[in-house]
Amino acid sequence: MTTLEKMNNTQLQQYLSSLSHSYEEVQAQKLKLDMSRGKPCPEQLDLSAGLMNCLSGADYKAANGTDCRNYGGLDGIPETKELLAWFLEVRPEEVIVGGNSSLTMMYDLIAKAMLHKIPGSQAPWSKLPQVKFLCPSPGYDRHFAICENLGIEMITINYQSDGPDMDEVEKLVATDPAIKGIWCVPKYSNPTGITYSDAVVKRLAAMPTKATDFRIFWDNAYTVHHLTDTRAPLLNILEACRQAGNPDRVFEFTSTSKISFPGAGIAMLASSEANVNWLKKQINIQTIGPDKLNQLRHVRFFKDQAGIENHMRKHAAILKPKFDLVLEILESKLGDKNLASWSKPQGGYFISLDTLPGCAQKVVAKAAAAGVMLTPAGATFPYGKDPEDKNIRISPSFPPLSELQQAMELLTLCIELVSAEQELAKRGL
Amino acid sequence: MTTLEKMNNTQLQQYLSSLSHSYEEVQAQKLKLDMSRGKPCPEQLDLSAGLMNCLSGADYKAANGTDCRNYGGLDGIPETKELLAWFLEVRPEEVIVGGNSSLTMMYDLIAKAMLHKIPGSQAPWSKLPQVKFLCPSPGYDRHFAICENLGIEMITINYQSDGPDMDEVEKLVATDPAIKGIWCVPKYSNPTGITYSDAVVKRLAAMPTKATDFRIFWDNAYTVHHLTDTRAPLLNILEACRQAGNPDRVFEFTSTSKISFPGAGIAMLASSEANVNWLKKQINIQTIGPDKLNQLRHVRFFKDQAGIENHMRKHAAILKPKFDLVLEILESKLGDKNLASWSKPQGGYFISLDTLPGCAQKVVAKAAAAGVMLTPAGATFPYGKDPEDKNIRISPSFPPLSELQQAMELLTLCIELVSAEQELAKRGL
Repeated sequence: MTTLEKMNNTQLQQYLSSLSHSYEEVQAQKLKLDMSRGKPCPEQLDLSAGLMNCLSGADYKAANGTDCRNYGGLDGIPETKELLAWFLEVRPEEVIVGGNSSLTMMYDLIAKAMLHKIPGSQAPWSKLPQVKFLCPSPGYDRHFAICENLGIEMITINYQSDGPDMDEVEKLVATDPAIKGIWCVPKYSNPTGITYSDAVVKRLAAMPTKATDFRIFWDNAYTVHHLTDTRAPLLNILEACRQAGNPDRVFEFTSTSKISFPGAGIAMLASSEANVNWLKKQINIQTIGPDKLNQLRHVRFFKDQAGIENHMRKHAAILKPKFDLVLEILESKLGDKNLASWSKPQGGYFISLDTLPGCAQKVVAKAAAAGVMLTPAGATFPYGKDPEDKNIRISPSFPPLSELQQAMELLTLCIELVSAEQELAKRGL
Repeated sequence: MTTLEKMNNTQLQQYLSSLSHSYEEVQAQKLKLDMSRGKPCPEQLDLSAGLMNCLSGADYKAANGTDCRNYGGLDGIPETKELLAWFLEVRPEEVIVGGNSSLTMMYDLIAKAMLHKIPGSQAPWSKLPQVKFLCPSPGYDRHFAICENLGIEMITINYQSDGPDMDEVEKLVATDPAIKGIWCVPKYSNPTGITYSDAVVKRLAAMPTKATDFRIFWDNAYTVHHLTDTRAPLLNILEACRQAGNPDRVFEFTSTSKISFPGAGIAMLASSEANVNWLKKQINIQTIGPDKLNQLRHVRFFKDQAGIENHMRKHAAILKPKFDLVLEILESKLGDKNLASWSKPQGGYFISLDTLPGCAQKVVAKAAAAGVMLTPAGATFPYGKDPEDKNIRISPSFPPLSELQQAMELLTLCIELVSAEQELAKRGL
């Protein structure tokens, strides 16, 4: 029972009136804060200042002699593969280094699967009457936007504490040949913060699928993005698929977008050699090669695994107080009221908050009307439609602590306000 | 009549024997030279050494305050648009700045047209029974590879001295609704070196097309790549299309690949605002934005139009002696023999050479067998098939002068040798 339900009508009306008054006071402050995206803050970007000029006019050669200024090198220079492949625990021949965006690698791959047979396909997906993807939700809005753009039907799958509802996933993929893929953010998931358990990874790798060209799109975006010294373990999905006899089942993605620079990092894809060889032939038509100087820059700056791990501790030192502040305010303002629940992530970029059903859109709109932009309610679900209208994604990384405090106090106020209005409406008042 | 045709049988056999002897001598030198691609040489890349470290940890903001390290900015920062838009004589709102490859922008655009309706389309091209492109040839092999990869049927159009055979082009596009595009390299064309005349540009802009979604793919790759002070004028195609009442007909492309670094330059597309707005909506699904730091780097290094023009003169100073050497050797070895003809370009990266019909593949094979790799014969035609087997693309830019001399002496020797063998075969000897 919520605190509101325990109030009598008069108490509820007085409470609402007091909340409305507080809200008007915040509106008068004319805030202008943006918490809509998981953007690193300038202090985080300053950590990589050395990346800006770590090359010189004479330092442009890869260890194998490749002139990184010139054309060529479809899949990345060896030292960049080595620098990054350890996070995914993959071998260099399973890797393609891309440009500055793993999202682009995902979109491009699916666009190619629409136009060409991928290994195991009977036909390009655009030639089929229907293509469907499973979308564990709440999830990443840009994954869902790719599906929507390419006319891929999305099926919402509920998240449990250790990954997608695997009973549901197994049942669906076993019977429907139109289901060609599943989106997964397996570690410090966007936005729920959960990490897939070994059991879930093994079931995904081993489950029988009706489609012969079913693929897991494994967006391992936050693999080294720990907030504490407790690092969530995640099973190696390529290895799990290989052991289960489905070596070509997975395409894994990662990037340095939230390690070095969001706009000027390096993206990477890992998959079986069969998939990688197929994809390299396709990419060869699309480009004469990615920016190898930026690859070399990352090697010079980060040097090795220890360099990246040390760097990620500096990110955590900036991010952890922000996450802590958000959680403290949620706890202090809403902790005993049963009006919302939220995640307490050990890594990644988001806190996932659930209001009472039917409140999220109104809360986000009220926050916007008082100058705080949040990710649109519903964005974490396929087609932007949260079936219960309750999920809100909180992105604590960008605003400074003082602004974050203002924004969170407003958000919690809006949650109380909208919940109270709803309770009042429920009573017909 | 060729010099060979004038010989009697004995003379011809003696001549061939002497050529074969010379060829064996070259083979003994075990050359290992690569003239297969239009790659800038290291000395050209050294001209942009200052680009490597012209930013600093504190210099990351665009003039409008954008943090170029972070996410965002789909179409490029304003000063980069300004730096590059002058070559194409277009307005900033007609421009999308991309990643490091204009080829990627071309491929992506056509892949998008396969999957989505572009402005004017009745249906995505992949839903049509047939899509055809006109391919003025000899042309750029990577354009043709995109068509082949995407299942687009290519129709070869002959080049004349001022552009494609426009009578043929006009006749075809007026009647066949399946013809959706034409590839053009309008200035210092790859490989012929020609520049389209005003009359050709105007006819392309104005011609009636049966397809409502016909597009010109205007790859203006060599627009500032002059070899001499005589600059070939080229009419502004966007303006010509606008004046002809076909404002959405053209997508124009360029890049700094052969201005700054081939692997780490900046690509750009220009088109009507309607096309640009449509494309931005599509690109928004594919990426969170291109590498803005690399854009800023180019602005800092080149500064302005004068900076680029001055830089291109330095390129020309390196390239011109290489082109001159190739032309001198062709003239001195083959000038009076009627065994080959070749272009004398005023800009760009290539010399286009025509052997006697039926000889090009054998010449390229013989050169390879003596250690000189040329662009595969036929590569300059759709499907890699030169109908007369006579065109060879010479790329003088990469090898140093001494190697270029060796390579060209071998090439001319191979032309004489293969021509003599053919003449002998013709006489049944």
